[in-house]
Amino acid sequence: MSKYSIGLDFGTNSCRSLIVDVSNGNEIASHVFPYPSGKDGVLVDTSDPNLARQNPSDYLLGIEVTIKEAIKAAKKSLPQFNTNDIIGIGVDTTGSSPLPVDENGLPLSFNPQFKDNLAAYVWLWKDHTSYAEASLITETAFKIRPKYLAKIGGVYSSEWWWSKILHCKNTAPEVYENAYSWVEICDWITAHLIGQLTPSKIKRSVCAAGHKAMFNMQWNGLPDEEFLETLSPGLGKLRPRLYSEAFSSEKLAGYLSEAWSKSLGLSKNVAVCIGAFDAHMGAVGAGIKAGTLVKIMGTSTCDIMVSPEEEKLNDIPGVCGIVNGSVMEGYFGIEAGQSAVGDIFLWFVNNLVPESYGKTQDEKFRNLEDAASKLKPGESGLLALDWNNGNRTILVDVRLTGLLIGQTLHTQPHEIYRALIEATAFGALAIIDRIQDYNVSISEIINCGGLASKNPLMMQIYADITNRPMKISRSDQTPALGAALLSTIAAGKINGGYDSVAEAQNSMTGTGLVFNPIKNNHEIYKKLYKLYKQLHDGFGTKAWTGNMYNLMKELLDIRDEVRRKT
Amino acid sequence: MSKYSIGLDFGTNSCRSLIVDVSNGNEIASHVFPYPSGKDGVLVDTSDPNLARQNPSDYLLGIEVTIKEAIKAAKKSLPQFNTNDIIGIGVDTTGSSPLPVDENGLPLSFNPQFKDNLAAYVWLWKDHTSYAEASLITETAFKIRPKYLAKIGGVYSSEWWWSKILHCKNTAPEVYENAYSWVEICDWITAHLIGQLTPSKIKRSVCAAGHKAMFNMQWNGLPDEEFLETLSPGLGKLRPRLYSEAFSSEKLAGYLSEAWSKSLGLSKNVAVCIGAFDAHMGAVGAGIKAGTLVKIMGTSTCDIMVSPEEEKLNDIPGVCGIVNGSVMEGYFGIEAGQSAVGDIFLWFVNNLVPESYGKTQDEKFRNLEDAASKLKPGESGLLALDWNNGNRTILVDVRLTGLLIGQTLHTQPHEIYRALIEATAFGALAIIDRIQDYNVSISEIINCGGLASKNPLMMQIYADITNRPMKISRSDQTPALGAALLSTIAAGKINGGYDSVAEAQNSMTGTGLVFNPIKNNHEIYKKLYKLYKQLHDGFGTKAWTGNMYNLMKELLDIRDEVRRKT
Repeated sequence: MSKYSIGLDFGTNSCRSLIVDVSNGNEIASHVFPYPSGKDGVLVDTSDPNLARQNPSDYLLGIEVTIKEAIKAAKKSLPQFNTNDIIGIGVDTTGSSPLPVDENGLPLSFNPQFKDNLAAYVWLWKDHTSYAEASLITETAFKIRPKYLAKIGGVYSSEWWWSKILHCKNTAPEVYENAYSWVEICDWITAHLIGQLTPSKIKRSVCAAGHKAMFNMQWNGLPDEEFLETLSPGLGKLRPRLYSEAFSSEKLAGYLSEAWSKSLGLSKNVAVCIGAFDAHMGAVGAGIKAGTLVKIMGTSTCDIMVSPEEEKLNDIPGVCGIVNGSVMEGYFGIEAGQSAVGDIFLWFVNNLVPESYGKTQDEKFRNLEDAASKLKPGESGLLALDWNNGNRTILVDVRLTGLLIGQTLHTQPHEIYRALIEATAFGALAIIDRIQDYNVSISEIINCGGLASKNPLMMQIYADITNRPMKISRSDQTPALGAALLSTIAAGKINGGYDSVAEAQNSMTGTGLVFNPIKNNHEIYKKLYKLYKQLHDGFGTKAWTGNMYNLMKELLDIRDEVRRKT
Repeated sequence: MSKYSIGLDFGTNSCRSLIVDVSNGNEIASHVFPYPSGKDGVLVDTSDPNLARQNPSDYLLGIEVTIKEAIKAAKKSLPQFNTNDIIGIGVDTTGSSPLPVDENGLPLSFNPQFKDNLAAYVWLWKDHTSYAEASLITETAFKIRPKYLAKIGGVYSSEWWWSKILHCKNTAPEVYENAYSWVEICDWITAHLIGQLTPSKIKRSVCAAGHKAMFNMQWNGLPDEEFLETLSPGLGKLRPRLYSEAFSSEKLAGYLSEAWSKSLGLSKNVAVCIGAFDAHMGAVGAGIKAGTLVKIMGTSTCDIMVSPEEEKLNDIPGVCGIVNGSVMEGYFGIEAGQSAVGDIFLWFVNNLVPESYGKTQDEKFRNLEDAASKLKPGESGLLALDWNNGNRTILVDVRLTGLLIGQTLHTQPHEIYRALIEATAFGALAIIDRIQDYNVSISEIINCGGLASKNPLMMQIYADITNRPMKISRSDQTPALGAALLSTIAAGKINGGYDSVAEAQNSMTGTGLVFNPIKNNHEIYKKLYKLYKQLHDGFGTKAWTGNMYNLMKELLDIRDEVRRKT
């Protein structure tokens, strides 16, 4: 009899469940639940475009709806499917998305006193209100705790844990004072599933802790109280109410609570593994091993690598994090990423593409892609920077914006669309270059996430720009697959699971389609990348100095040359 | 009894007639005729976005339709209107728009042999195919005839006469060899009206000759043969088949031909004045005098000033032309301009504005303007360069393109629309600064043309950015009014016209609405202009050197400050 496990993947706009056959990774059933709150699941504030919050009750509703519906679907397609054969559940989420909770681990937003206060909700990963606090943390660490910065690429981000907590302390003291503790949502949802919400007992993810909260056993866990007090008097008092241990994701968090067991119709023996961020679990689901770069391509992009614990790994400036065990035990997880990829395309199609390309968003995307596919590299004369949501790696700077250059009176939407895709690919190449410059060699790139499977034009452009084959993960739901896979190790071999991540990956993961680089395209993109880097360094670094006079002219020269050949 | 005169204005997409009451400038009737050929009246080549030609037979059809229809309308609204009271016709056109003609002055495009050859048609002002020839002319003049460059701002443009003729010689020798002569369309249409097309007898406009063909009596008219031979062996032979005299626009070209007189039902005593470019006649229709800057705002923008002949006028680098008599006798005409203004807005609304702003172009413009009006300066965080069609003044460089910076994931079309308007205003300010730097003082700005009268948001932004009142010409058809006005001087006082331009302007022109600068807006725009100039100089000049790191950050700082105050 087959065993099954469930991956629960909590994204920016929706969550999904995925029921997986443990023996071969086959995806039996799945269900997606768009969050009912806010704008596409995000609570926003029209007066502050930096603000992005989420309603934690959407997650609880999401667990119930998606698991029940997926089970229904599984039963329909597999008559032999039996819920008693489900051995594990894993949870992956966005992050850093911290939530203020009371002494019982309940979100402050559940308290009627705070129901209209957005600071009492989940501070979603892409909330950028805390940029001033992020600078303060970077500056303070640079002065008194440089070691803290070494593992996070040298710059602390406004998207991360301490920036957000500190911004809450500075701007919403009523919430801060009433928050007994703060919990990443990957830990909070996992804790909820096992019915153990007491803050001191919540098992924390080393992935979230290490990458976002500067947690490292080298300095005894979280940053010390003196450092926190230097950031803001009183902040140190929070430290003992947070956590002093953190775990990698294949470890057992606990077993499904009675309440959830009843509500979902699942056994109380279902093992729930430690939660983690979507990208890290996605990397596992994509089949990550040493030498593999896994790119999780969605609204934003996460780049994950692992480096064996025993190999000496230098710190890599501008790379978001290097954390022991953050992907799996025995390896340093390396995380980099781009703050917006799919989000840039969505912004463009939702705001700047007329109905001549189609009536619906889908139709517009399809026609944009059709038309953009017919363009040769360089043919539009356009070049863009992919910074509409700042630059996470390698500049680690949210105070950056988009840039488009080369438009004439003839520029068409599909040309801009292609330039935006290219911009994200150039950004991806800058990350690859940076990682390789620090002696982590990349022998394989596996892409997963919605964009990788849905956008062949994009994957071809990535192959052409990076001059590397782009493999596509067999699964297009790798975070959920990774979560499901990791829970089989928490469940243990004795219960039908596996002993190690490698063993589970061997059975449950694989790649499919491959996009190979086209030499002629790469030759043109090499020239365009040089110009991209000029804009990148000129607008993104203090060190650059020079002149931009060549830029428009070289773009026109490349355009004219391509057109002459066509 | 009132006397009347007719202005014929030949634009990029259509032509219009305007019947004016000579006593007071009242506009009695008007008719617009969209050119039937090509795309919106422009013959294009999909493989070369630089190419823009026009069909000269559209002009002839346009004369007939617009004058007949305007007369019909005049008779309807004024029962006492009598075509015998029409004393003059003036013609203004785009330029430099040269046309190759045969020995009889007929366009080569009329010859069946060349009907499919776009080189045999009118080379429309905005045709940019000749950029390489323009560079060659600039370089050659720089080396062997620097005096030629002094009057045209130091750089010869691809939009101008010799660049186009030379490009024709280089790329369409079959047309070049068969062209007996070349004629600016303002001269060709005027010559057609008086029935005197023999090339040697066509009276040429000093406006076109001086601004575009480097004609100057200081060096005996057109550039000398040696210079032309240096540009291209054989080109010198064309010189004697062109012209050696040129005239200002209030002069008589001749009287209406018998054929046109019959066809239009007008007297053979109708005086036709010398043709000129739309902007120059527009400046007259707007009431230009010493100290007045007239801005003619349309698809592109032309800035015209006049400086009394007796005052010493220095050459102004980057300003398109300084030509004695080009606007009117006794004054140096100074011409500057922006290669695209309305065209940028048209490009944007036609390509990048979704139907949520309206179904038609008009509706979209209206809603964009409504929404953009509600924005405060700096609020969007956007900044653009107005170079989608190159930069005419002060960089004189067609190898420049558009640039947009500051876009986030929240940027809306109306924010970009406002940024594009602002970009053109910053470009206008750069021109004003340049002219004033060379000791031509500007005491008044009068705006005319379609955009000036139709876009109050734009005019307010121009006032705020330049910190000067923007007066709007009473007439919104100043080129046609200017043409009609100038023909009254050609007709002479004895026939019911005037003795001088000033006398005619006193009766026939005036201003209406005035937009005054708002102090707070100007304060913010001062900061944005600094950033615009940084982009302008960084991307547009070789001399600039530095770093762009401050740019996105300062834009965000300005944005955040404005939003905090709102």
